[in-house]
Amino acid sequence: MAFRVAFQGEPGAYSEEAVQRLFGDAAPQAHPTFEAVFEAVETGATQRAVVPIENAVFGSVRVNYDHLRTHAVRIVGEFQLRIHHCLMAPEGASLDGLEVVRSHQQALGQCRGWLRTHLPHVTPEATPDTAGAARAVADAGTSAVAAVASRRAADRYGLSVLADGLQDDAENFTRFLALAAEEAEASIVGTGRPKTSLTFVLQENVPGALFKSLAVFALRELDLAKIESRPLVGHPGRYRFFLDVYGSAWDEPVARALDHLRELTQEVQVLGSYPEGTTAD
Amino acid sequence: MAFRVAFQGEPGAYSEEAVQRLFGDAAPQAHPTFEAVFEAVETGATQRAVVPIENAVFGSVRVNYDHLRTHAVRIVGEFQLRIHHCLMAPEGASLDGLEVVRSHQQALGQCRGWLRTHLPHVTPEATPDTAGAARAVADAGTSAVAAVASRRAADRYGLSVLADGLQDDAENFTRFLALAAEEAEASIVGTGRPKTSLTFVLQENVPGALFKSLAVFALRELDLAKIESRPLVGHPGRYRFFLDVYGSAWDEPVARALDHLRELTQEVQVLGSYPEGTTAD
Repeated sequence: MAFRVAFQGEPGAYSEEAVQRLFGDAAPQAHPTFEAVFEAVETGATQRAVVPIENAVFGSVRVNYDHLRTHAVRIVGEFQLRIHHCLMAPEGASLDGLEVVRSHQQALGQCRGWLRTHLPHVTPEATPDTAGAARAVADAGTSAVAAVASRRAADRYGLSVLADGLQDDAENFTRFLALAAEEAEASIVGTGRPKTSLTFVLQENVPGALFKSLAVFALRELDLAKIESRPLVGHPGRYRFFLDVYGSAWDEPVARALDHLRELTQEVQVLGSYPEGTTAD
Repeated sequence: MAFRVAFQGEPGAYSEEAVQRLFGDAAPQAHPTFEAVFEAVETGATQRAVVPIENAVFGSVRVNYDHLRTHAVRIVGEFQLRIHHCLMAPEGASLDGLEVVRSHQQALGQCRGWLRTHLPHVTPEATPDTAGAARAVADAGTSAVAAVASRRAADRYGLSVLADGLQDDAENFTRFLALAAEEAEASIVGTGRPKTSLTFVLQENVPGALFKSLAVFALRELDLAKIESRPLVGHPGRYRFFLDVYGSAWDEPVARALDHLRELTQEVQVLGSYPEGTTAD
C-alpha cells in the first residue's frame, strides 16, 4: 500500500509540491481543510501530513499552530518552498484575449505589479485556492479566463503557461512542516541542524517573565530561530509564545532548558524536534 | 472640510467600523488596497488612516508591518474590534431557500461550524472581502444567495439579517492601528497606558543576540506586550523583530532603552508611541 501524505487543497496546490519534496514518491492525499489534514494523520488514515506554517510575506499560519497544539501529532521535518506563480489558460489563449484572472486573493496580491503592468484591463477574481482556480479555468475552457497558480497545476489540468515568475517579491517562501501521529514510529525527514518547536504560556503579571523564560536558553548558549507572541484573548496581560530553538529536545542542553522553562512558565508543550529544512525553488 | 480617514475595503467593511470607533464622525474613505491607504495618509490626501495589524485567530497582517516600515507614517492609536459575523440576504429570504453563501474565505472559515450545522446543503463561495460579498448579494437580489459580513454591511446594502453571531470562536478580535503622516501635527487617540511599537534587525551570528536586545528593556523593568520575529529571506540566520513595549518613546526609560538597543542591533525604527487601545464588540 502506498505511503500516504495528507495536504490541504486540491491536486496541483503548492502544498502538494511540498509533499513531493519532503516524501519523494509518496501518494499525496488532498483534503478540503487543515482540520481534516490533522485528523487524517492523527487517526492513521495517512502516514504523514504536510502543512504550511509560515509565509515570508504573509506571516504565520496561526490556525495551524493551534492545530499543532490540540492534535496528537508531532513535527518530523520541514521544507521551504519558493512560491513561483504562473499565468495559465486553455491552449490557444493569449494575453491579449484575457478578460478575467482568477486565483487565491494572496496570490493575486503577490502578482499585483505584474498584473497591473501586463494586464491592466483584466478583472482579478478571488477564489478559495490557486489549484482550484486552475481546475475551474480548465473546466470552463474559454480563452478569456486565466488562472494564477503553480506550474504543477498547469500540468495537472492541461493548461498552457502564458507567463512565468509573476510574483512581485522574488523572496517569497512558504515554510511547510511534515507531521506524524504523536505515537507513531516515524523517522525524521532531512539531515539539517536539529531544531525544536515549542509553545508555552507566561504566568500573569510577572514583570520580566518573558526575559526570564528566554534566559533558560541564553544561559545554555542555545540559539532561537523564531519567536512569536500571541495575546490570550479574554485574558488581558497573558501571552502564549511559540519558539523554535536549535537543538533536539532529546539531548541534554535543550532537555534541561525545557525543565527549567517548566519552572517559570505554564503549559510547556514540545511540538517536535526535527532537522532544519532546506530551501528550494 | 470633513476629517478624512482612509481604510481598505468597501463601505461596510470591519475596517470602516474601526474608523468610526477611533474617530467618531470622521468621513471614512474606502481604498482598494493597503498600499493605497498608506499612500493616502502619507501624502495628506486623508488626515488619518486605520489598518488591521493583527487578528486573534489569523495572526499578524505582515504586509501592514512592511508598509509601516517603508512609509512615512506613525501610529497614533489602536482599537480592538470583536469580529461579529451576520448572515444576510435580500428581504423575504429564509434559511430554507438558501443555496449559496458568499464571504471572505477567512470569514467563511470562522463560521464553518455554524454553517455546517445550520446550512449543510449550502455551497460556500469565497469572495475578496466581506462587505463586497454583501454588496454583490444585494445587487443580485435573489433569495437563494446570502452573504456573511458585518451588521454594518447589512444596514448599508439594505439586507435582512437572517442570523447573528455565526463565528465559532467568540474570542475573535482584530487589532486596528490609527495612523498619521510622520510629519503631521497629530494628537494621539485614546487614554490608555502608553505603548511603543518598534522594529529592529539582529546582528548576524551573535550568540544570544536576541536575549541581549531584550535585556535593554528587562533591565529597566519595561514590559513587552508583543514580540514577533521574521526571518530575513535571502539572509539565513538574520531576523527582523517587531516589539511592543509599555511606555512612551518620549519618556526617559524607553528612550534610554532605545539608545541602548541601537548599540546592540541594526535598523532600529520607532513605529509610534500611542495609548493602549480599548476592546469593544
